[in-house]
This record gives sequence, C-alpha cells and structure tokens, in this order.
Amino acid sequence: MTDPRTSIIGERIKNIKKTIAISSGKGGVGKSLIASTLALSLARKGFKVGLFDLDFTSPSTHIILGIEDVHPKEEKGIIPPEVHGIEYMSIVYYSGDLAAPLRGFDVSNALIELLSITRWGKLDYLILDMPPGIGDVTLDLIRLMPNTQFLIVTTPSQLAFETVKKLVSLLKEMKIPVIGIAENMKMDESREIRRETEKLNLKFLTGIPYDSRVEQAMGDAQKLLKTTFAKKVERLASET
Amino acid sequence: MTDPRTSIIGERIKNIKKTIAISSGKGGVGKSLIASTLALSLARKGFKVGLFDLDFTSPSTHIILGIEDVHPKEEKGIIPPEVHGIEYMSIVYYSGDLAAPLRGFDVSNALIELLSITRWGKLDYLILDMPPGIGDVTLDLIRLMPNTQFLIVTTPSQLAFETVKKLVSLLKEMKIPVIGIAENMKMDESREIRRETEKLNLKFLTGIPYDSRVEQAMGDAQKLLKTTFAKKVERLASET
Repeated sequence: MTDPRTSIIGERIKNIKKTIAISSGKGGVGKSLIASTLALSLARKGFKVGLFDLDFTSPSTHIILGIEDVHPKEEKGIIPPEVHGIEYMSIVYYSGDLAAPLRGFDVSNALIELLSITRWGKLDYLILDMPPGIGDVTLDLIRLMPNTQFLIVTTPSQLAFETVKKLVSLLKEMKIPVIGIAENMKMDESREIRRETEKLNLKFLTGIPYDSRVEQAMGDAQKLLKTTFAKKVERLASET
Repeated sequence: MTDPRTSIIGERIKNIKKTIAISSGKGGVGKSLIASTLALSLARKGFKVGLFDLDFTSPSTHIILGIEDVHPKEEKGIIPPEVHGIEYMSIVYYSGDLAAPLRGFDVSNALIELLSITRWGKLDYLILDMPPGIGDVTLDLIRLMPNTQFLIVTTPSQLAFETVKKLVSLLKEMKIPVIGIAENMKMDESREIRRETEKLNLKFLTGIPYDSRVEQAMGDAQKLLKTTFAKKVERLASET
C-alpha cells in the first residue's frame, strides 16, 4: 500500500530546481560542515537556498550554524524559518534535541512526514545533509526525490574511502547521478584520493585542507565563512 | 511475538565474562580503531578476547586488522575464526563487503541472526564495535545482551561531544552501565572534554593524541600495536 503522504511530496518539492544530497560512506568526514557552508556560500552568491538536515544519527547543522530559538511556523504545513538567508529545516524539529532513538521504521516515517509537511519556497538549491552510509533515509530519499544528485565527501583516510566505494557502487547500481567526490581534511599534498576517484569514473571536485579555525567558528556562520575551509567550499559551489 | 532465536542468544553468550560496546555519538571519531586495538591489547595481555564488528553503517575492523580470506566455520552454528589471537566476527560475513543496504528491520534481523548463530568460546572479553549514534543495533543490543557495558569515544570537537551527550542521556535513562569516555585525536592539551565528562558524572578514561602513524599501520596489526596510539589504548585496557 502506498503511503498517501508520498503523493503530496511531489507537490511540495516542485519549485525546487536542484536538490543536492551531501553524503559520505562513514561519519566524521565533515559532511555537515560542508553542507552548511555550501548552503551559506550559495546564498551569498544570490541563490535561493534551502538546507535540510536529515542526518538522523547525529544532526548537527543547527550547532554549526548557531541556530537557537528559531522554529518553523505552522501554516497549512510547516514553513522553514529563514536563518542566515537560508530556508532551514532539520530533523531536530521533529525529534527534539534530546535522546530520541528512532527505529528504522520510525526513521522512514519521520522522513516522509517531514518531506510532506515542509513548504519550501522557490529554491534554486535544496542542500540535504544526509546520514552517513546507506540506510533507510538514503533509500527512501532516492525513492521519494528521484531527481536528487549526490555530492560525496571523504577524507584522505583509507577507511573513509573504502566506505565511499560501497556508497558509489550502490548509487551507480540505482542510476543515481553523482556530482563527484570532495576530499576533506587533507593533511598533505597526496593525490591518492584524486586517483582513486578517477578510477571510479567520478569527478574529483576539490581537496580541502584541514583547517583548525573551523572548530573555533562553530556556531558562528559569519566566522565560518571567513575560514580557508569556506573559501574552498565556495569553489565547490561552482561545481554544483 | 518473541522471535524464537532470542532465547538461544543467552545460551550463546553465557561463557562471556564481560561485554564492552565501543560506542560514539557520531562517526569518524576512531571508534573502530579503538575497538580493534583494545581487542589486540587485551589478547596480548593473555586474556581470551572476541571482537565483533556490528557497525552496519560502515564496518571497518576487517580493514584495520588486515583480515582477508579468513572466514567463519559452520559447525552447529558459526565458529569465529581466530585472527591475531582474537576470535573475530563481523557483519561483513553477513552482508559481504559489497554495497548491501539494510533496512532498519533487516538490521535488527541480521543482528539477532548473528548473535544466535555465533558460537563464541570461553571469553574474558567480547569487544563490540557499534554503529555510531543510537539506532536499531544499539536498542536491540541493550535488549538482547543486557549486561553489556558501554565505553564511549569522542574527539575534542564540540560537534562530537554534543552527540555524546545525547547517547549518554539515553544510556542513563535505560540504566545501562557506562565505563567512561575516551577522548581521541587530541591536538592539544585542552582539558575541556575532561571537564565536560565529569559534569556528566562519568569517568574520563584517557586522552589519546592524534597519531599520523596510525594511517600507515592500516591493515597491519603488528605495526598498529607499535604506535603511540596503541600505547594509549593499552592503558585504556586496564580500565575495563
């Protein structure tokens, strides 16, 4: 049986030109930081941008962007608040910021609920911060928003890249478009990940050096935009 | 209805003295590295040790320990192979190393299946490498192996520690014993995480400095044991 809410989702997202899912094989590679900074950068370039935190395992864009006491408005659905020029929604508005373990079924349910009630404006870009790896959210999202393109984040670590390979292999199998791979937290000039990316027939988007100033900018969007990290992510914006 | 396999699980784990789940609020904090190194260290001290990779989102202990072409033996269940003196099992033996997206329900099912078929020997320690955050596996594990103690890994990053707070709050609510918190990838002498840990009334176990040699030791257990990282994890072993 089809969930009746899934039919409304098409209606909700019809004014969104491009949806980009920021994804990774494993956590801790800087996915949420890149998603947040990419959204800020695109908004600063004059695009209409939405940011949707779907990382059910550890939502963190609200911490990165310092979003407190801002809540969506209910009006024939939910209207995302505007934060730093971005239309912002997060799973934390659903689960709260407390311990809220969701079972796989509940995660699917929460995703469908959020997609069907959120009334995005006209957007040039909707940036999605995905959970790491391939789980219910990724599978549901591919089904519910089939036009989504994936931008994959890795680090130079072999462990991270091994998990990326798995993710890429799944996305290819499902014929999901992949924009390319960004290498975050580079400690040196190694071209290994670039080579490995090209072996997968994917575009190597950029290498982003490790930037210790990012930690100090946590919660402060303006400070974040001034980091070297943000300058690199800005260039990523032109690839999307 | 109770799954008939759950009753056999108690039988399967009755010869295990202590089960320690290495857990974290988010991925990429070094959980799998600590789980693998802790298992190696305890085995080297003469304990009987099992290592069970339950990180469905991105299993990686087999990559860390360089385990290839070693497979469990079927004999009235599954007997874990001995690798570097450790009884080793991993979800990859269930899902294979290819793209294998599992739905929440399938994850629960796979966990129950693995716990009910695996025939561990007499063990002093069973070390579990958990998926990041609080999901189906954590909830099921708490139900199926209620004597499990949690050892939580964080990094100095605020983002990582925020997610740890959520995990701790859930574990406390469910009255699950927490051994303490280990801070990995320390870049400086900051005592912030120690202070925050004590605020949660938890034991701060150790601070582990960032060690670039660990990446070079990937896949080589002997080399891994010689790193400064391993020396620190060895001390962690005495806290368990």
